[in-house]
Amino acid sequence: MKFSLMPKETKFFNLFESSASNIVAIARELDGLFNDWNDIEKRVDRITELEHVGDSITHEIAALLHSTFITPFDREDISALSERMDDVTDFIHASADAVHIYKIKEPTDRAKELAGILVLAAEEVAKAVPCLREKGKLNDILKHCIELNRMENMADKSYRSALGELFEDSKDVAHIIKWREIYEHMESATDKCEDVANVLEGIALKHA
Amino acid sequence: MKFSLMPKETKFFNLFESSASNIVAIARELDGLFNDWNDIEKRVDRITELEHVGDSITHEIAALLHSTFITPFDREDISALSERMDDVTDFIHASADAVHIYKIKEPTDRAKELAGILVLAAEEVAKAVPCLREKGKLNDILKHCIELNRMENMADKSYRSALGELFEDSKDVAHIIKWREIYEHMESATDKCEDVANVLEGIALKHA
Amino acid sequence: MKFSLMPKETKFFNLFESSASNIVAIARELDGLFNDWNDIEKRVDRITELEHVGDSITHEIAALLHSTFITPFDREDISALSERMDDVTDFIHASADAVHIYKIKEPTDRAKELAGILVLAAEEVAKAVPCLREKGKLNDILKHCIELNRMENMADKSYRSALGELFEDSKDVAHIIKWREIYEHMESATDKCEDVANVLEGIALKHA
Repeated sequence: MKFSLMPKETKFFNLFESSASNIVAIARELDGLFNDWNDIEKRVDRITELEHVGDSITHEIAALLHSTFITPFDREDISALSERMDDVTDFIHASADAVHIYKIKEPTDRAKELAGILVLAAEEVAKAVPCLREKGKLNDILKHCIELNRMENMADKSYRSALGELFEDSKDVAHIIKWREIYEHMESATDKCEDVANVLEGIALKHA
Repeated sequence: MKFSLMPKETKFFNLFESSASNIVAIARELDGLFNDWNDIEKRVDRITELEHVGDSITHEIAALLHSTFITPFDREDISALSERMDDVTDFIHASADAVHIYKIKEPTDRAKELAGILVLAAEEVAKAVPCLREKGKLNDILKHCIELNRMENMADKSYRSALGELFEDSKDVAHIIKWREIYEHMESATDKCEDVANVLEGIALKHA
Repeated sequence: MKFSLMPKETKFFNLFESSASNIVAIARELDGLFNDWNDIEKRVDRITELEHVGDSITHEIAALLHSTFITPFDREDISALSERMDDVTDFIHASADAVHIYKIKEPTDRAKELAGILVLAAEEVAKAVPCLREKGKLNDILKHCIELNRMENMADKSYRSALGELFEDSKDVAHIIKWREIYEHMESATDKCEDVANVLEGIALKHA
């Protein structure tokens, strides 16, 4: 174990916020992928890198948890928060990866829309997580959670319309299968942002 | 916090039973959807409402858990029971929602069959959950769990036959994709009833 | 409760190792299925039996956990280890089951490859699990975890190539849907081996 003057509590908060910033970065990269639609290969690589960054942060949190006796919140809440944020990056990566694997030729309007919602949700996560540092801000968390719930509903609506349209607009079943998978991953990513909100809400309620 | 004369233990049991009754109601509504096949729009809306009712109960249980120090069972068992019951309604809702999104024109015999099994499983959950109230009835839980296991096997058999038939009977791949998703959700709903049984079994074994 | 002279700690380790051996057995059976491609029906039945064996071991661990006050590791780690090993057998069974349900006519090279990787991963799990018995061997666990991580990367690469090829090589969409499902189950099985590694790593870090 390295010698460190920084209290462990501060380390947890720093790692949570790194993870949240990483979610914003990877969501914006996915948004760039669908909305600019150039340098596909490079953008997918960048998203893969950011997914690895997320993995490292998740591992660091797990290691810190194993070596810490007194934690700022319940251990299972720390694990859950860390893992749900990791899930967000995993699903964003999976969407980009499917674009690459299936050699997608052009983006759809629904993909652009879903990517936009995902950026908003990621930014909301990044606003909510720093509120954990101060007891006085725990109530603010609940407001961000309501926002995240609203965004998840938007994503869900968009996703369902996307699926319906896919079967109406296309007779190319391979096209349907590929886009259905991409949409599913994007919707799951927004779902996981809401799961992050649920963990944050639980922490806020316990400590308010 | 509201002032209340009802002991918290009783509140937990009431909420568990509300959740179980809600599962029966939503399962019967899905059964009505496939077996009567009229007022589709209205029936799907009703199922969506019941899914929201389930969400509210799940949130109430989580909030009660956060504000309660001494709980009738281990906290993680209460969470797990509540969340697995919520999963059942989510998957039932997802089946109905897919019917709506994909503008399904007519039900299949397998969908009718799976919906029927789901009603039986939901009713079994609703019989098992009230046994939690009395130590003397914990052994009855095990009998209901065996029944739920049997129903899950029935659903699994029906689901697998449904999948096989789908590929044999149809050359219309869009039809295959749509029904495969509906069957998957229905089978998952029965699976989750068995997960509820597993949580109940764990509680019964700990407290018997 | 039966009278027993064997300390409970030993019983846990025996059950963990039975579960790990069962994973090796079922993975080898799947490898035999794809690489020998004869007696399909009989091999699928054998895999179903091994999945039931896995279920029994998982139930035994849960029952032992319920009746034990002092456990060799944290209760949630014991549950997680047991359930992740059960997930491996479930996904292997699901792959074989899909072969049966979809009446697959011949194996693909990628299926043979993925089955081979799965055997390696299963054998690595079976090497890692016995290290739990001795404090002095906890560090060996980390080496096996690195290996399992490497295998999961191999499987992931193979899986992604398999998906890409599926859409390039075939115009038969029913074929694509069927194999996509089989590949997904096989990749999930290797994923779950890595999840086993993560649980083992957590235990090793806590107790090293």
